[in-house]
Amino acid sequence: MLANRAGCGLADGMTDDTPIASPGRSVGLVKSCDVTLEAPLRLELGGTLPSLEFRYETYGVLNASRSNAILVPHALSGDHHVAGKYSADDAKAGWWDAFVGPGKMVDTDKFFVIGINCLGGCRGSTGPLSNDPATGKPYGGDFPEITCADIVAAQRRLVEHLGIKKLHAVVGGSKGGMQALLWAADHAEAVDRIVTLACGLRQPPLALALNAVARASVLADPRYRGGQYHAGEGPEDGLAVARMIGHISYLSPAAFEKKFARETVPGAKPTDAVQWQVESYLRHQGDAFVRRFDANSLIRITRAVDRFDLSGRAAAGKLFKSDGPAILAVAFSTDGLYPPSEVKAITAAAGKRGAYFEVATDAGHDAFLLPSESLFAHVRAFLASV
Amino acid sequence: MLANRAGCGLADGMTDDTPIASPGRSVGLVKSCDVTLEAPLRLELGGTLPSLEFRYETYGVLNASRSNAILVPHALSGDHHVAGKYSADDAKAGWWDAFVGPGKMVDTDKFFVIGINCLGGCRGSTGPLSNDPATGKPYGGDFPEITCADIVAAQRRLVEHLGIKKLHAVVGGSKGGMQALLWAADHAEAVDRIVTLACGLRQPPLALALNAVARASVLADPRYRGGQYHAGEGPEDGLAVARMIGHISYLSPAAFEKKFARETVPGAKPTDAVQWQVESYLRHQGDAFVRRFDANSLIRITRAVDRFDLSGRAAAGKLFKSDGPAILAVAFSTDGLYPPSEVKAITAAAGKRGAYFEVATDAGHDAFLLPSESLFAHVRAFLASV
Repeated sequence: MLANRAGCGLADGMTDDTPIASPGRSVGLVKSCDVTLEAPLRLELGGTLPSLEFRYETYGVLNASRSNAILVPHALSGDHHVAGKYSADDAKAGWWDAFVGPGKMVDTDKFFVIGINCLGGCRGSTGPLSNDPATGKPYGGDFPEITCADIVAAQRRLVEHLGIKKLHAVVGGSKGGMQALLWAADHAEAVDRIVTLACGLRQPPLALALNAVARASVLADPRYRGGQYHAGEGPEDGLAVARMIGHISYLSPAAFEKKFARETVPGAKPTDAVQWQVESYLRHQGDAFVRRFDANSLIRITRAVDRFDLSGRAAAGKLFKSDGPAILAVAFSTDGLYPPSEVKAITAAAGKRGAYFEVATDAGHDAFLLPSESLFAHVRAFLASV
Repeated sequence: MLANRAGCGLADGMTDDTPIASPGRSVGLVKSCDVTLEAPLRLELGGTLPSLEFRYETYGVLNASRSNAILVPHALSGDHHVAGKYSADDAKAGWWDAFVGPGKMVDTDKFFVIGINCLGGCRGSTGPLSNDPATGKPYGGDFPEITCADIVAAQRRLVEHLGIKKLHAVVGGSKGGMQALLWAADHAEAVDRIVTLACGLRQPPLALALNAVARASVLADPRYRGGQYHAGEGPEDGLAVARMIGHISYLSPAAFEKKFARETVPGAKPTDAVQWQVESYLRHQGDAFVRRFDANSLIRITRAVDRFDLSGRAAAGKLFKSDGPAILAVAFSTDGLYPPSEVKAITAAAGKRGAYFEVATDAGHDAFLLPSESLFAHVRAFLASV
């Protein structure tokens, strides 16, 4: 039985420093926490959310000076469940379990790690599935438009609620990296270090195009109904295709070659809808996504990501403060969504506070989810820097 | 008024050698021709088509020895209308008008050029919109599964019908290039030269994946109805999204940057379905495609393209004959669908009969539709070779 070192911040076992039994160097069994913060949040594009619900998880122990907290914001389809399992029987651990745990890249023997379902999400934090206090019914398609800056402003509320004035670091990949950059840009006084993986200073045009088609697929599904669908009656077919489009962009051509080549589905006939292993894989990803994601969340979050663009502030020399957080920007050589050239824009904007590290890989964008010894060593050293 | 030099082969004005008035060096006004060949065609994957209808166009003059004919098979969404206009008022000329005409890359002052709507297409040749003689109704979703080899076998029937025993060349890009390769592989005695642009010896895994998602989008549309929809009542929304997916793969990341950057649609509000210029462009491409293409054709033709794989025959040394046609394989440096590495496999398989030419471009796969002086010079020299 694994010791449960996961808590919900100050209220729940934050002082639990029982040595962890660490088979597999996992954080072990964890639980999610919920909190509602009643203060309203004004949104960047207009409108106000009267209160904020958060679902989050923590791993490791917050030290007495509350100075060892690391926030790990999630990517497009991720959530607060960063590491560990809820039950020993769980088929899968949290989405970054290989990266976060005792002795891992983000070492929970040293750091207190926080995972939060983002604003606009569908896994427990305020989003389209939440009740609109004005109507008493879920927002659905009436959930307001948000930005990544709104997502980060909401996160800061929770971090402060946990009694943390300054984060040791924010570490995130893809959309998680965009959030990390907004911590540095808009909340420099509240964070010491930023690690971004697989993202740049802006959403590039190709990534815009992919999200545009994903949204078009959802909106074209007759069951979308302007976003006012009931649970289980949503645009599942359109949402599955949207996810398939996403997955194509997460792998490099070399990764498609290596994983699938031109393998066929055994026994498939020429008239069958699914004939290729890659076709089967993409269908599976689409179907799995539908079971855990909400179409309105996809629309709101992809629009938020598409709006992400700090390049103008960077060009004006007004993005990062000279005494702001140190920034490590990690690129993956074959990332087609956020290629090294986009990542280097972060380092250029960060000047003396910036560092760049490139991982040679053939895995494409998804490489930020794959353990790499050189990456781990580099990030560990950065997180240990004074 | 432009002189009409287009005919339908032997029957229709093939001996018309009136000098062309060539403002814009266009082939001028053209017309399409229809013919039905009654002999049945046995299909590679099983089944027989009792007869073959063809819609085709020709440009230039067939010489007395009938030795100057060049076939230009079309790509996925193209058709028989390669060059010229039907009426001076037409907004657009044929899809390769910049490449085919007097003095152009394929010089209609020297060559007799044939464009054919492919088997399985939806622009006049035998395909899902054709009547199934067994039922007297359109095949629709019951149209048989086909291969690129079937498409080429059918083409050869028409070429022979036109009295041409041996083509001077077959010149095609993308799926048109695959057909050119099958002329070389399966009909070597009937063609002297092959020019392929933007294709390799096989459909690579990434391209398989993109087509898989395009088909999933069509099949997910409730109006697809197993392919048994009536004209104007088909899966238009799913088909539009399928085309949007295709268009993303036709441009390079640099082309997206150059054409669209992060430009927004003027006046678009944050809640509007279309907010980005690239989003607007893709929507436009999707909508335009629906007006000219049939969903069952898309399914059949993408499956035919996905099945295309000559790499096994090449590895066994049995693909091309040592006295077969000369093969020029043209690659485009930023083509993400059929990158130079895939194109070089053609040259490797062709041995001494092969030549490779790479166009430096940032346009991506679509570069095979863009005029290039160096490309034109290279192909012209190859077509003039003895």
